[in-house]
Amino acid sequence: MRMYDIIRKKRDGGLLSDAEIQWFIDGYVKGEIPDYQASALCMAIYFRGMSIEETTALTFAVRDSGDRLDFSGIDGLRVDKHSTGGVGDKTSLVVTPIVASLGVKVAKMSGRGLGHTGGTIDKLEAIPGFRTDIPTAEFEDIVNNVGIAIVGQNATLAPADKLLYALRDVTATVDSLPLIVSSIMGKKLAADDDCIVLDVKTGSGAFMKTVEDSRRLAEAMVEIGKRAGKKMCALITDMDRPLGFAIGNSLEVIEAIETLKDNGPDDLAELCVALATRMLYLAEKGTYQECEAMVRDSIISGKALDTFAKMVYAQGGDGDWILHPEKFPSAKYSYEVKAERDGYIVSVDTEGYGVSSLLLGAGRNTKEDVIDSAAGIMLKAKTGDFVKRGDTLAVMYSEREECFAPASARFLAATRMGDAAPEAMPLILDTVE
Amino acid sequence: MRMYDIIRKKRDGGLLSDAEIQWFIDGYVKGEIPDYQASALCMAIYFRGMSIEETTALTFAVRDSGDRLDFSGIDGLRVDKHSTGGVGDKTSLVVTPIVASLGVKVAKMSGRGLGHTGGTIDKLEAIPGFRTDIPTAEFEDIVNNVGIAIVGQNATLAPADKLLYALRDVTATVDSLPLIVSSIMGKKLAADDDCIVLDVKTGSGAFMKTVEDSRRLAEAMVEIGKRAGKKMCALITDMDRPLGFAIGNSLEVIEAIETLKDNGPDDLAELCVALATRMLYLAEKGTYQECEAMVRDSIISGKALDTFAKMVYAQGGDGDWILHPEKFPSAKYSYEVKAERDGYIVSVDTEGYGVSSLLLGAGRNTKEDVIDSAAGIMLKAKTGDFVKRGDTLAVMYSEREECFAPASARFLAATRMGDAAPEAMPLILDTVE
Repeated sequence: MRMYDIIRKKRDGGLLSDAEIQWFIDGYVKGEIPDYQASALCMAIYFRGMSIEETTALTFAVRDSGDRLDFSGIDGLRVDKHSTGGVGDKTSLVVTPIVASLGVKVAKMSGRGLGHTGGTIDKLEAIPGFRTDIPTAEFEDIVNNVGIAIVGQNATLAPADKLLYALRDVTATVDSLPLIVSSIMGKKLAADDDCIVLDVKTGSGAFMKTVEDSRRLAEAMVEIGKRAGKKMCALITDMDRPLGFAIGNSLEVIEAIETLKDNGPDDLAELCVALATRMLYLAEKGTYQECEAMVRDSIISGKALDTFAKMVYAQGGDGDWILHPEKFPSAKYSYEVKAERDGYIVSVDTEGYGVSSLLLGAGRNTKEDVIDSAAGIMLKAKTGDFVKRGDTLAVMYSEREECFAPASARFLAATRMGDAAPEAMPLILDTVE
Repeated sequence: MRMYDIIRKKRDGGLLSDAEIQWFIDGYVKGEIPDYQASALCMAIYFRGMSIEETTALTFAVRDSGDRLDFSGIDGLRVDKHSTGGVGDKTSLVVTPIVASLGVKVAKMSGRGLGHTGGTIDKLEAIPGFRTDIPTAEFEDIVNNVGIAIVGQNATLAPADKLLYALRDVTATVDSLPLIVSSIMGKKLAADDDCIVLDVKTGSGAFMKTVEDSRRLAEAMVEIGKRAGKKMCALITDMDRPLGFAIGNSLEVIEAIETLKDNGPDDLAELCVALATRMLYLAEKGTYQECEAMVRDSIISGKALDTFAKMVYAQGGDGDWILHPEKFPSAKYSYEVKAERDGYIVSVDTEGYGVSSLLLGAGRNTKEDVIDSAAGIMLKAKTGDFVKRGDTLAVMYSEREECFAPASARFLAATRMGDAAPEAMPLILDTVE
């Protein structure tokens, strides 16, 4: 086989065989296929797309490019939840303790944030002592005993995705459906779960800007997960507004804790209940209605919060902070962002909010950046709210006072004001089963 | 500027500005823009195309990426002729002495062959002693005294094209109209000619497989040449058959000499007269009819052949071989390729003939290969001819007897036989002025 022929075939709209796709991924991971041929192929895929068979082959090749996890030491069904990436998205911190408290196992590998999106691992590391790098045997023990453990992604998992994603990121080939699918599902399928619930974000802060594109993405991921023998479900959810009010690591942990106390923002609570219900339902814990009732009971009874605290203790963190979130230290400086005119918040560029939070120190521009756990934004008004000139739109937190000027400018630019109330949109736009 | 933004803009169908194109070429030549971004851009250009303004900017940026020639030391108008690459195309060896014998100057830079196409420099090096690497002052002297000199392409000419072509060659982005135009014209415009006649090949052995695509290519090149202040003309000619009967270096020189003696194959003679006439006409030597009459007179009088011999002497070669081509040594072995059935030669994959000749030792697979000057193919039957089973289709020549089996198999595979005579096609399909 020659890489030239594979590029040319795809360029001309042909269908690549499983063997050709496997050969490309193998050769690329081994360094035998140079980046310039891989990027030309990615651009050809961008224009020509891939059939579901090609996308499946690419996903499986990415999955098989490194180690595959084996959690046979964990008793019972393992369920995972994955979000395609959002701003202020702390749902993992809420839904995984809920389902773990109800008897399904969560053996979760999570990523760190880069750019405008946050990462679950960064959020958990806001808790003092919390370890995200745990040997497999201990990890399995924690999952068996507590029902849940969350650790950082293994570097040997799906190395093809790491290489390809880094290349796509600098060659304008990120937003191609088959490449997104194979990246997300290649990693997910290398883990050892029985059921996966996907939260596919749509709108300004997401890979896919329209509901139709998001549905196509969700359908492809669900189909490929099923082909790999997993039980699958996807919710398509609105990312034209941030989830909840908190953006930033410890701020989001605190908000997740409040939600686990049945005291969280309505939109966040709604989505968390829906995701957790879907996870239980996939694990065949009952009818959809029964699963939903179990989820609500887990919250109201305090079982879910208790499970979260136990996981934190088991992973070396101070679980007392979960029960007493007032222990999280505040940032040194705060700053109120004021509305510049009267009007409704018509829409929000959530990516802009993410960048604003990044500027405050809550995220990373490069992998080497150190995160300021207390930095971030607490929204005081959201899409659809009416505000008067001078009202506080958000409070910003940072260790560096000089960040407020650029961060608030970016924030205001991302907040579109108007005279008429925007049409109310449901948060959960569709379900793909 | 960021390369990412340029790739993305083109990917999304946007128009790149002159400054963006210039910045890309500058950065690529300096090694600041990596191959993987350049190949992604080339693939995006393959799919999105380029406007004539973008193509002009790219061509001028390629032209300006290295040294530009200055032949102000040469008296009189300088005319060049360029072919987009063919099999058995020895027209340069015929037309340049003709026009030089008629008072226009030819200061020609030519390339070597690679893959299935031959190169003028390789053909000339079949003449013993012929030097193709000549200092500028001597080169100008020869042009002033003899009217013509042909040397190898300067390595400092249009380095962006060398880099880009090597990249396109391995990323399936060669056959993109704006990239072809900028490659050919970027090099041509770095030379210092007043008039350029282009021979744009169409068909199986050419960049462009249809007359329509070839016309678009010719129109773009003529337009950009005019924008650079050159007088331009292009002929679109059929490459679904080889030109003349000879393929291979010394075989082609001998056939060119025969054509300069008015004793060449009809198709080759027809195209050479047309090209030479166009060159004189662009140089304003008379009406088209007057120019054509001058060309025929130059051949019949022997002036053109004499000019060729003088050039060979001036460049250190044995000009006596031109007047006595029987001096060219024959290859050690020859082999007759026989027809496997009765029938008409319906069409020929000229690229296949080129590869067959390459297998005999007449060309290069890699830049380091050494050429066997005497190797090649003499056709005994061409498209439209009727042959009987066992008739000789061609005679092959090589220093290595073991080449005949693969070379004749490739040759026969490229010769399509049928029961009905194919429709006769004109050799010159169109003219773009």
